[in-house]
Amino acid sequence: MTMKLNCDLGESFGMWKMGLDEQVMPHIDMANIACGFHAGDADVMANTLALAKQHKVMVGAHPSYPDKQGFGRRSMAMSEKELTNCLHYQIAAIDGMAAVHGLTLEYVKPHGALYNDMMSDEQTLNIVMRAVASYAKPLKLMILATNQAAKHKVQANDLQLELILEAFADRQYTDEGKLVARSLAGSVHDKAALMAQVKQLVAHGTVTTRSGQQLALNADSLCVHGDNEAGIALIQEIKALCQQA
Amino acid sequence: MTMKLNCDLGESFGMWKMGLDEQVMPHIDMANIACGFHAGDADVMANTLALAKQHKVMVGAHPSYPDKQGFGRRSMAMSEKELTNCLHYQIAAIDGMAAVHGLTLEYVKPHGALYNDMMSDEQTLNIVMRAVASYAKPLKLMILATNQAAKHKVQANDLQLELILEAFADRQYTDEGKLVARSLAGSVHDKAALMAQVKQLVAHGTVTTRSGQQLALNADSLCVHGDNEAGIALIQEIKALCQQA
Amino acid sequence: MTMKLNCDLGESFGMWKMGLDEQVMPHIDMANIACGFHAGDADVMANTLALAKQHKVMVGAHPSYPDKQGFGRRSMAMSEKELTNCLHYQIAAIDGMAAVHGLTLEYVKPHGALYNDMMSDEQTLNIVMRAVASYAKPLKLMILATNQAAKHKVQANDLQLELILEAFADRQYTDEGKLVARSLAGSVHDKAALMAQVKQLVAHGTVTTRSGQQLALNADSLCVHGDNEAGIALIQEIKALCQQA
Amino acid sequence: MTMKLNCDLGESFGMWKMGLDEQVMPHIDMANIACGFHAGDADVMANTLALAKQHKVMVGAHPSYPDKQGFGRRSMAMSEKELTNCLHYQIAAIDGMAAVHGLTLEYVKPHGALYNDMMSDEQTLNIVMRAVASYAKPLKLMILATNQAAKHKVQANDLQLELILEAFADRQYTDEGKLVARSLAGSVHDKAALMAQVKQLVAHGTVTTRSGQQLALNADSLCVHGDNEAGIALIQEIKALCQQA
Repeated sequence: MTMKLNCDLGESFGMWKMGLDEQVMPHIDMANIACGFHAGDADVMANTLALAKQHKVMVGAHPSYPDKQGFGRRSMAMSEKELTNCLHYQIAAIDGMAAVHGLTLEYVKPHGALYNDMMSDEQTLNIVMRAVASYAKPLKLMILATNQAAKHKVQANDLQLELILEAFADRQYTDEGKLVARSLAGSVHDKAALMAQVKQLVAHGTVTTRSGQQLALNADSLCVHGDNEAGIALIQEIKALCQQA
Repeated sequence: MTMKLNCDLGESFGMWKMGLDEQVMPHIDMANIACGFHAGDADVMANTLALAKQHKVMVGAHPSYPDKQGFGRRSMAMSEKELTNCLHYQIAAIDGMAAVHGLTLEYVKPHGALYNDMMSDEQTLNIVMRAVASYAKPLKLMILATNQAAKHKVQANDLQLELILEAFADRQYTDEGKLVARSLAGSVHDKAALMAQVKQLVAHGTVTTRSGQQLALNADSLCVHGDNEAGIALIQEIKALCQQA
Repeated sequence: MTMKLNCDLGESFGMWKMGLDEQVMPHIDMANIACGFHAGDADVMANTLALAKQHKVMVGAHPSYPDKQGFGRRSMAMSEKELTNCLHYQIAAIDGMAAVHGLTLEYVKPHGALYNDMMSDEQTLNIVMRAVASYAKPLKLMILATNQAAKHKVQANDLQLELILEAFADRQYTDEGKLVARSLAGSVHDKAALMAQVKQLVAHGTVTTRSGQQLALNADSLCVHGDNEAGIALIQEIKALCQQA
Repeated sequence: MTMKLNCDLGESFGMWKMGLDEQVMPHIDMANIACGFHAGDADVMANTLALAKQHKVMVGAHPSYPDKQGFGRRSMAMSEKELTNCLHYQIAAIDGMAAVHGLTLEYVKPHGALYNDMMSDEQTLNIVMRAVASYAKPLKLMILATNQAAKHKVQANDLQLELILEAFADRQYTDEGKLVARSLAGSVHDKAALMAQVKQLVAHGTVTTRSGQQLALNADSLCVHGDNEAGIALIQEIKALCQQA
């Protein structure tokens, strides 16, 4: 099975442009589309969905804490009920708009601080899992492939929820399969290290962690970024590498 | 066929309460639920949907121009594309959340300035009709029953869209079947005039206009208000009157 | 020196009313006015300032984390720079609008989660102190009177910032002078306990803590609430008690 | 007296960048700074003010209708009171933040749809004039130099308000001194026509209108744009031309 490429898209807002969505879309398999809480708005969502349709890209919801100014990167102390409703609202919005464009929403990938909180706090992950599982249509949930993946799959299975495990091409890993904090030297790979990590992931299903260990990550998808021209070129190289495998 | 009662609900926001939703819901047939653009939020929507489910009330989307501070009562110069996407987003949000509660969204009633603009401007009505008709599920559109109703039904029919025509219990009518502006003396009925208007509507399908003419309004539904205790009592009396018919 | 009564006001938003501002204003000394981030908007602020002017009440800024849906009651992970600018913006908005009404802004009282974070985290308190001290006009900062008050005054003094220490009439205290969590039984006083606490504060400058200790709180101001008719009556009794002292 | 160059700045928002503010600021005389209603936020405002201070550029408020998604380009039906308070709030926010940076706010230039509404509707212009005049500090108001300038100056003078009249380098004019609608061919000048218009404005205080007439525009300031590298180069040429005069 080929490694799928996923990318955060639809992160423009009103007059403000972000990301080279038109150039990224032809090269990816899964589009994580912002739902208007950290980025995106009804117009951006409609345009992004039309683009996904044109390139036959699978669409997922990319919901966030409600914080446009902070781009969803600031943790917010939301109650379980608030977070659940906040997720249902965003998922519903993109789900119904996807249907208008003849597309079927297939998965959910939380954004920014919510993604980080979910991966560092079991209770938050549990709330997110239950929110996605309780949506009226079956949707998969994309989370980080870590050394806890087996446990996460059991938890999801109990809710009849299917997980998509994603890995990162450009980030160094801890022995637990978490991403090394960006503030640490060497945490973000240069191109050579990035391509080596992708090659290893695709060929062997492992990454070499910061401490030098070999860590198995049975990732289903690889997260790529299309912020600039260099990113687009890189996506194409990563895609070629994945397809050789 | 009994006249259905519809009411705007779910217009609280965060800590701010508006309307006696718990007291209104048992007495109405159709709940027009705010979608978070002029009022409501994900929590308020979830609570309102749960209440509608409990009382077996039909649910509709109550979308608006994006303007919480102005409560959707200020016209905004939106392009056709913007308005269409803005409607799809709101309809989708309440549609998906309704499904989470085991409910099926059945219709759309535009709110406030958007409702007024739609009834006074053919082009806006046309955009709204096409937006609702192009949603991926069949939904009805609630508009004001006026002397243009036949024409409106033809326009809707061309889009395979079904209309729900509503009348107002408490408002005086012009000869065109529009509501007399609130700024004019006598435009809002006292209780006796209100009950008389309901009785006439239910028995004869007509209203007596400001100028004294008899105007046929084949209304399917009557709009009622649950802002306060007096309003709740009135809804019960109107309901009894409709059921006698 | 008489104990000053302060109250959170101007917490309506758009069409949503909150608090009996017109009834509270005649009985208080200091109005903490919301700045549009958790509550209030330009219209509500203008109305509240006009009311403060009419009753010769001292006006303060009541800034918050940017979160209307959560009413500023959800902690947000803001950087020092973000929090500082966010405070300056809100203070500036109410400062300039106060001047339009011929009033002088005199102090700042952080709201909700920001207030709690500031009282439980020294670093946040320090950021708030420096933000208020770096505003272009001299403003006082209102914080909770605790057993750390002496230290807080030294910290403020280093920034040439003057503190206003406030106590609560209706809340039980820990031995550290913090408020006992609302979730614990007995944390919110009934009327008799409330009046006794006010009497003790005014006469002796102490409160009896949950554990039974006498704790000195040299409070300059007492926080009161005007949410409903009972609250208004209570404010008048508290005021009478303070003036007897 | 040299023609002053003014430019709209501080129109980024959160993570979204707009405009080359760092490159524009060294070449202009007056910075119209967004106040957070159509663009900008507390962080962007602080950064823009620091940049203006560094380059000794005069700062003005650039307030808007409250509509970030629409970038303030959609007319909103606001009452006189709402618009006045909305302007006071935005002016106050940037005024107080400017003072934090040791700067003095000197003028107000309405943005987008509000600017257009003000220039096409006398009543809106009057509300804006009175809002600026009633601010607690003396501020000038920047409006379009048209053939109604003398009348506008009399109206402003009655309110003890000083006007700044601006002209556009890149736009064709009607005989009334209004800008020709962008939708019409020839309405936006190429570089040669633009430089010719600037030269004529600086040397003779006139523009050649679409119909070929010579129209006197006693403009105090010229509006320039710094959206891209070409715009920056053009600003420098315009500046050189103005300084030769």
